[in-house]
Amino acid sequence: ISGEMNGEEFTEQFLLEVVDILFSYIKKTYDRKSKVLDFHHQHQLLEGLEGFSLELSDQPQPLEQILVDCRDTLKYGVKTGHPRYFNQLSSGLDIIGLAGEWLTATANTNMFTYEIAPVFIAMEDILLKKMHEITGWGETEADGVFSPGGTISNLYSVIVARYKRFPEIKTKGMTALPDITLFASEHSHYSVKKAAAVLGIGTDNVIAVKCDERGKMIPYELEANILKAKRQGRVPLYVCATAGTTVYGAFDPLANIADICKKYDLWMHVDAAWGGGLLMTRKHSFKLNGIERANSITWNPHKLMGVPLQCSAFLIHEKGLLQACNQLRAEYLFQPDKLYDVTYDTGDKTIQCGRHVDVFKLWLMWRAKGTRGFEILINKFLELAEYLYKELKARDNFELVFDGEPELTNVCFWYIPPSLRRIPRGPEQEKMLHQVAPKIKARMIEEGTTLVSYQPQGDKVNFFRMIFSNPATKKSDIDFLLEEIERLGMDL
Amino acid sequence: ISGEMNGEEFTEQFLLEVVDILFSYIKKTYDRKSKVLDFHHQHQLLEGLEGFSLELSDQPQPLEQILVDCRDTLKYGVKTGHPRYFNQLSSGLDIIGLAGEWLTATANTNMFTYEIAPVFIAMEDILLKKMHEITGWGETEADGVFSPGGTISNLYSVIVARYKRFPEIKTKGMTALPDITLFASEHSHYSVKKAAAVLGIGTDNVIAVKCDERGKMIPYELEANILKAKRQGRVPLYVCATAGTTVYGAFDPLANIADICKKYDLWMHVDAAWGGGLLMTRKHSFKLNGIERANSITWNPHKLMGVPLQCSAFLIHEKGLLQACNQLRAEYLFQPDKLYDVTYDTGDKTIQCGRHVDVFKLWLMWRAKGTRGFEILINKFLELAEYLYKELKARDNFELVFDGEPELTNVCFWYIPPSLRRIPRGPEQEKMLHQVAPKIKARMIEEGTTLVSYQPQGDKVNFFRMIFSNPATKKSDIDFLLEEIERLGMDL
Repeated sequence: ISGEMNGEEFTEQFLLEVVDILFSYIKKTYDRKSKVLDFHHQHQLLEGLEGFSLELSDQPQPLEQILVDCRDTLKYGVKTGHPRYFNQLSSGLDIIGLAGEWLTATANTNMFTYEIAPVFIAMEDILLKKMHEITGWGETEADGVFSPGGTISNLYSVIVARYKRFPEIKTKGMTALPDITLFASEHSHYSVKKAAAVLGIGTDNVIAVKCDERGKMIPYELEANILKAKRQGRVPLYVCATAGTTVYGAFDPLANIADICKKYDLWMHVDAAWGGGLLMTRKHSFKLNGIERANSITWNPHKLMGVPLQCSAFLIHEKGLLQACNQLRAEYLFQPDKLYDVTYDTGDKTIQCGRHVDVFKLWLMWRAKGTRGFEILINKFLELAEYLYKELKARDNFELVFDGEPELTNVCFWYIPPSLRRIPRGPEQEKMLHQVAPKIKARMIEEGTTLVSYQPQGDKVNFFRMIFSNPATKKSDIDFLLEEIERLGMDL
Repeated sequence: ISGEMNGEEFTEQFLLEVVDILFSYIKKTYDRKSKVLDFHHQHQLLEGLEGFSLELSDQPQPLEQILVDCRDTLKYGVKTGHPRYFNQLSSGLDIIGLAGEWLTATANTNMFTYEIAPVFIAMEDILLKKMHEITGWGETEADGVFSPGGTISNLYSVIVARYKRFPEIKTKGMTALPDITLFASEHSHYSVKKAAAVLGIGTDNVIAVKCDERGKMIPYELEANILKAKRQGRVPLYVCATAGTTVYGAFDPLANIADICKKYDLWMHVDAAWGGGLLMTRKHSFKLNGIERANSITWNPHKLMGVPLQCSAFLIHEKGLLQACNQLRAEYLFQPDKLYDVTYDTGDKTIQCGRHVDVFKLWLMWRAKGTRGFEILINKFLELAEYLYKELKARDNFELVFDGEPELTNVCFWYIPPSLRRIPRGPEQEKMLHQVAPKIKARMIEEGTTLVSYQPQGDKVNFFRMIFSNPATKKSDIDFLLEEIERLGMDL
């Protein structure tokens, strides 16, 4: 079968061969006998591996080579959908979501105007309404935008909070404003600090509020910091409460924080990038009680809901604010005299111009699973976390970073090799323990059997952070991980 | 054939059926007999069309319905790869690029660390080096990042320019800085103003420098504005020169602007989002002479080079500045004690955290076409623009917005219906002419035969802006467009 391709023959055959390569990759991804990754250093990749050259030249490569390139690109990559890939909050490979992304690529359009993306704009509207309803705002006030990731969504929250209180910021800049202060917990994602750096607020003006041992913001500390800022003549503006911290998976006490925000007239943002998925379950959604009082919310379906990257929603309660804050009315794009209702030209609401279509895969997955399907999935992730938690408690050579049943799918722990078990807890042992996780991780990468992340946090030395967001993972994979850590770390 | 999918049976059959739907869409896209779009209003889509419901519910839909949903989503969308789709700077559907995007979706990873995207990080490095070489910087200094679109790339340019001069901005914010001023031409993209709004600089502090009648920044006007700002006690910081304006396709005189930037010690950014593609051709690259003196450059391969959306490069001459400006060293992500060279963990260079893989499709297209393949393509687009320009000059019922051969693929013109040709030029006629393009465009959308954009510019009333960036477009499609405009506008 042939049609036209770029004025030449369109090779359906080529695309079919690519699809064949992708199918065989997908099968390997789900296969526990295959490796999660086949590690090579950057200089090896840049120098070229067994006929896999990344070089770009003046002359074209034949289509056969392009197919080899596709195969090799996958071969030397990381199988993020593998049942034993636990490295990031985003993992898994959902087939419906994947189909959605293939279709999105084929449609190859842009979210800035209704004119060229009518269906996707309608889907964004439907999804935002649905998410508003689920957060407890009710669907009438739906406003928001899908953005290129949680950090940008959190950036939006600071931009609109600032504009709401000081609309002159848009034309006059920060020099027209008093000294503003933002608050986020010491366990919050670094994106609030990043927003402060980017927006001209300055990272010094983000106060890191103390957390309890579970990583939850302490409301009393928040209030004390607000009062302190006021005494210093500063203007407290914004609080970012986290619903599901990156490392501990902790939920800040949203209702208490909402009370404080109300008392001091502060913008309340909830970063539920990671934990937002729990809103889909009747069993666990109570952990986000109080979110309905937020002014804005970040919720990334590409994390707990398993949507392919990228898919991040920024939700805002007050309709029209996002538009007022960001619009510049570029006439070449947003003509007021169009055939259709131009309120559906979403481009002027954003800090971008063109915007990738991130909604279709989520919409399609929601159609295919239903809200209940997501619920089943997420409940299962929490059961896996509970299983791991119990396993760790039962084993002598592992130690939990904090006790208590997991509230989200994060489980943080140390592996204590035999040599360290003989040394009493103290600075000496801690120093050695700090080396353990990095060494095991390095071996893990080289062997490619599984992948899990580690990091220090506050005064805690390097520990492993397990998360569950991969539908392919089973309890036996957890057993495998623990045995693998033991195997790789036993001699340390 | 079956494997595992989310703990259930993996249905290769399902994906094959999706691919089948995509193939039939691709064939229709290339088929001139098919419509560019089948227009419906938002309320029609939201209410549901002939069994196409966007509704999301608790219960799942069967897979057969999901396939119907895919088909309908494409049916009611816009075929941006159609030979007669001229509506945006991004158009066309390149099959290699499409294959690249399908693979990217299947790999489903994230650019923030080398650990989980080794091959894609290496490809980004190779692409940035290649693009540095082509701009004339030489490949040794390669630095930059692929960002979610030209507006974000331009945002980066202001962020780094500000940080370079005032590194205290990161911690202290704008209040620690003097009053800074940015400069961009009155024809420049609105993203510089957007950056000023977002970054806390304020849109009032972006000076719109006058252009000549071709839409090129007048160097004398730039210098006069710099001196004026200085007299007002302000600090001139940054100039955005445009290489290929959105509407006219104009190139600012880069060498002259570089002289002025040097004289006054200003950061020189070149927004070559649209015109950057000309660097790939030996015939037309001279139009960007002087770009090698820029401090930073935006170049969107998703425009003139026909790469699927999104693909925008932000290039910066000084190595390390992007990292210094944006890094926050989040320990959970960027552990310093890794197995590999952590300078390849690019996430701390960006204003994002997670970042979509936008490089693979460009890399694959470059492999398949070679630099020469892009050159042939882009030269052809310029020939089509020249053909249109000559056609318009030869026809009585069309008028060019400005005279002179096109320098890029933009051609701007009015259609003058018979009724208006009888009225002498003047405010009365202009008022009527202002209505013509919107009315024709509305009819065009309803008929779905072709799509072209229109807008006013300065004191010029609404006119059509044609562009060429679609490899499928031929001269006969240009003839068709002009006849279609006549047919739709004759009675106005």
